[in-house]
Amino acid sequence: MKDKPTNFPKTQPNGEPLKPITQVLLDRRASMHFTNEEVPEEYLNAILSLAGQAPSGYNLQPWRFVVVRDEENRKRLQKVAFNQPKIAEAPVVIICLGMKDEWKERADEVFLEGAKRGAGKVDAWEQARDGALQFITGMQKMDVWVHRHAMIAFTTLMLVAESYGFDTGPMEGFDPAGVKREFDIPDEAEVCAMIAIGRGAGPEKAYPGRFELNRIVYSERYGEGWKE
Amino acid sequence: MKDKPTNFPKTQPNGEPLKPITQVLLDRRASMHFTNEEVPEEYLNAILSLAGQAPSGYNLQPWRFVVVRDEENRKRLQKVAFNQPKIAEAPVVIICLGMKDEWKERADEVFLEGAKRGAGKVDAWEQARDGALQFITGMQKMDVWVHRHAMIAFTTLMLVAESYGFDTGPMEGFDPAGVKREFDIPDEAEVCAMIAIGRGAGPEKAYPGRFELNRIVYSERYGEGWKE
Repeated sequence: MKDKPTNFPKTQPNGEPLKPITQVLLDRRASMHFTNEEVPEEYLNAILSLAGQAPSGYNLQPWRFVVVRDEENRKRLQKVAFNQPKIAEAPVVIICLGMKDEWKERADEVFLEGAKRGAGKVDAWEQARDGALQFITGMQKMDVWVHRHAMIAFTTLMLVAESYGFDTGPMEGFDPAGVKREFDIPDEAEVCAMIAIGRGAGPEKAYPGRFELNRIVYSERYGEGWKE
Repeated sequence: MKDKPTNFPKTQPNGEPLKPITQVLLDRRASMHFTNEEVPEEYLNAILSLAGQAPSGYNLQPWRFVVVRDEENRKRLQKVAFNQPKIAEAPVVIICLGMKDEWKERADEVFLEGAKRGAGKVDAWEQARDGALQFITGMQKMDVWVHRHAMIAFTTLMLVAESYGFDTGPMEGFDPAGVKREFDIPDEAEVCAMIAIGRGAGPEKAYPGRFELNRIVYSERYGEGWKE
């Protein structure tokens, strides 16, 4: 296990300060096309390591990311993802996975080291681990559980990239079995989402609007529309 | 449908600038206890409306949020959530739902209005809708699909709240059937997660560490550990 990242860019590549998340959420559009401008290595490392700071139940971190930059590999990925142009165009495409089994193999390490770091009792980490395993495997469908978690890290990754001024294109249009086959991904994995990162090209997609707040937010009980 | 929000606080309640997301990800800990200090209404509205700007496939926005502030209601919620103290303590607890059916009823509106706003062809919105419905219902398990989407909005909500300087406590420890029963939530809903928002009280949980990057990130193919 590792401590928090300390070595990451403090500005956008052009020297401007990071965008506040409020601005990101107003500016962000899913880019359909990208230029071939690279994402500098230090930014990609920062985006990945900060995404890894996302929270997870019991700190089990069941997410994995496959970073695809090689042109031929992106073309292979494109073929199993409805031929979306952004996959061939963007310098970086990341496949986000949720592991349904592997997290169990790492549970001992997570609980023991967590306890040593003060997040649990060193003399009771095995009981804590057993309780967690029982809760997770007993109360949840594993495909749902790994999606729940992987999407926290995925969303964090997207918002960090956008805060650094990059454009992103999140995707759910792919053939999971094809993606797994082409990138040596184990059967147990759920392919949760993909994202292209780089510099958008061409006109942005129009903003399609959002539901009024009282149609997605309720007060105290379902159906009681929120009053702004 | 609504345009982007324009009226939201530009600073933290104490007048300080919003925290950059990089800082949020270093500072954030899941708070186990909260003070009873309120979340000002304008901040809660901003957190909710900015969370609603999260992206979704075809802009279908299948997420819903039930905001629970009433003390008695929070106690009822606590009882179906393993009696977690933060639910009774925090001034705001939000239940995040994914709707497995309701989004279909709203699909006409999403596609027609999206097309009118320039995000599709006005004379072909029905074909676009049919294609989307076929893709979503054909390729995905609906509980997985709504979790995938609800967690994008949920994570966005958490990161906006943290950027405004609030503390949060995300939760997956609850009895979904009990939560639905107590808050009039329809059967078709998935209870994806909950989050407490306010001001943390007492010592923070220790940071339990994270996997080294080469154990969660792979280069070009699964298993090929990422080199920072």
